[in-house]
Amino acid sequence: MGENMNVLITGGAGFIGSNLAKALLDNGNTVVVVDNLLLGKKENIADFTNNERFHFYEQDINKIEELCNIIKKHDIDFVYHLAANSDIQKSAKEPTIDAEMTFGTTLSVLEALRRTGVKNLFFSSTSAVYGDKTNELLDERTGQLSPVSYYGAGKLASEAFISAYAYMNDLNVLVFRFPNVIGSNLTHGVIYDFYKKLCANPKELQILGDGTQCKPYIYVDDLVSAIITRTKDMQKGVSLFVVGVDSATTVTRIADIICEEMKLQNVEYKYTGGNVGWKGDVPRFSYSMEKIWSTGWKAQYSSDEAVRKTIQWVIKNNK
Amino acid sequence: MGENMNVLITGGAGFIGSNLAKALLDNGNTVVVVDNLLLGKKENIADFTNNERFHFYEQDINKIEELCNIIKKHDIDFVYHLAANSDIQKSAKEPTIDAEMTFGTTLSVLEALRRTGVKNLFFSSTSAVYGDKTNELLDERTGQLSPVSYYGAGKLASEAFISAYAYMNDLNVLVFRFPNVIGSNLTHGVIYDFYKKLCANPKELQILGDGTQCKPYIYVDDLVSAIITRTKDMQKGVSLFVVGVDSATTVTRIADIICEEMKLQNVEYKYTGGNVGWKGDVPRFSYSMEKIWSTGWKAQYSSDEAVRKTIQWVIKNNK
Repeated sequence: MGENMNVLITGGAGFIGSNLAKALLDNGNTVVVVDNLLLGKKENIADFTNNERFHFYEQDINKIEELCNIIKKHDIDFVYHLAANSDIQKSAKEPTIDAEMTFGTTLSVLEALRRTGVKNLFFSSTSAVYGDKTNELLDERTGQLSPVSYYGAGKLASEAFISAYAYMNDLNVLVFRFPNVIGSNLTHGVIYDFYKKLCANPKELQILGDGTQCKPYIYVDDLVSAIITRTKDMQKGVSLFVVGVDSATTVTRIADIICEEMKLQNVEYKYTGGNVGWKGDVPRFSYSMEKIWSTGWKAQYSSDEAVRKTIQWVIKNNK
Repeated sequence: MGENMNVLITGGAGFIGSNLAKALLDNGNTVVVVDNLLLGKKENIADFTNNERFHFYEQDINKIEELCNIIKKHDIDFVYHLAANSDIQKSAKEPTIDAEMTFGTTLSVLEALRRTGVKNLFFSSTSAVYGDKTNELLDERTGQLSPVSYYGAGKLASEAFISAYAYMNDLNVLVFRFPNVIGSNLTHGVIYDFYKKLCANPKELQILGDGTQCKPYIYVDDLVSAIITRTKDMQKGVSLFVVGVDSATTVTRIADIICEEMKLQNVEYKYTGGNVGWKGDVPRFSYSMEKIWSTGWKAQYSSDEAVRKTIQWVIKNNK
């Protein structure tokens, strides 16, 4: 993936997709975004609409024929597949959401690649494919992947079909498994929840679990820089990387940072108890990033810094 | 899974399913078979149709509502999910076959379990989930599963969703990954291909590849005995077993055994060359069966014996 290429981003009006679209436009590429705007937002791509190298289609990814037509019309060289359900809590009650939006979209993209002959694919996978593996250092070789959320299942099922399609159709695929991503254009998650609760009541904050759930948060600019860097050096077959930060942030620490940035003092935290936020939540895990680090990339921001930069963006954009 | 239970077998009119149905009926259970007869055959279940403990529905598994109604009507305790596309060569040209018949049926079964509250599931997975791992001893803990066939992808994707559904809905699931299964009611594969070719021309036999492709063949009675034995002791969550035989048979040896049983001499073998029969074929692999052996089960027939018993059945039933 060099410069001046024709690239297609599925879910490109979403949180990560819109940040990636900006970076790829800045690098001189022609960027085609396909998004059904179910989770994506027009305002995320509003800055690009006057750029003649930007094209937007409000379109379901699951319509294979339409996807093929867009790929052919724009002579696409590279597909970045980011479209997915991104709300694990929501799909916990309706598993077919992840079957269709997280897995089905991938199958549709793979079929479109097969039918149009496009060879290059980036796929956004997740740490949720591992399941609840608290006491293991997780890397690309970890076995017995046992997702506990339908979202993790949809991503792992996607990886399974990517493997077969890559082999059968000589694709070059880059797969990143990454943890929580935060930053500008974020739409939901714990930071938003806390911000909204504190706007409604700056005196107290209900926190799901006991506050000790501890996860790494990667800043979206860091993730996008990893994607851009690695897609410049595409390999035959499937290349898998675990991508994240080597620090993590507890839920209580997130609350503290948000209170600091909102300039709130003496907020009373009310914990619901237990060490899991909701069923399907994985309270803590550790990533080994040796493989991605060996390529020279490393996250610029720590997990705590990512949280702080994100709440600053949320405060600025929700006034 | 004891006796006198109400069990449902998806794909129960197929090769393995009909053998399992017979064993479960013999054990005193009420057996409900759901099969769309696309690959299954009515003659496979003809012997049971007068048994009052046997019920048959010609029905797509992908119709979740209908599946739920059958489960409720027969007060099902246990679902054996065997329905799948079983023809890897066919789906190589049409990947959506495995997306729908191998993966989609599993998703449908899981949704039916969730909606009806049935807790017990057996799932037939495959050695094809591993992909082409020639130099590794494969077991339940093996990582970096990289299926090279859409069939293997459909089964691995199924395992992914089984993991999440089991966790979210407190299911007890037994998953077997097994290699080629052969025996009575077999419908396709290398033994059939060679038999048909030799019936048409007993002087020569075209063999795909160089004949050295070497795989373990498990006899269907052995597989069914493993299923029956292990489902008597269902555990909470997902229990995964690699199930097979500790011997293997080359393609040339299969040809030799078939010629012996057909009483053909001096047949000229014509090899197409190369060490893979077709794209997506895995020429050889080794299984570690320590886990299933530790339960006391072991295959009664060697791979060569399984081939011999199967060709004897084919000859007897195709006159």
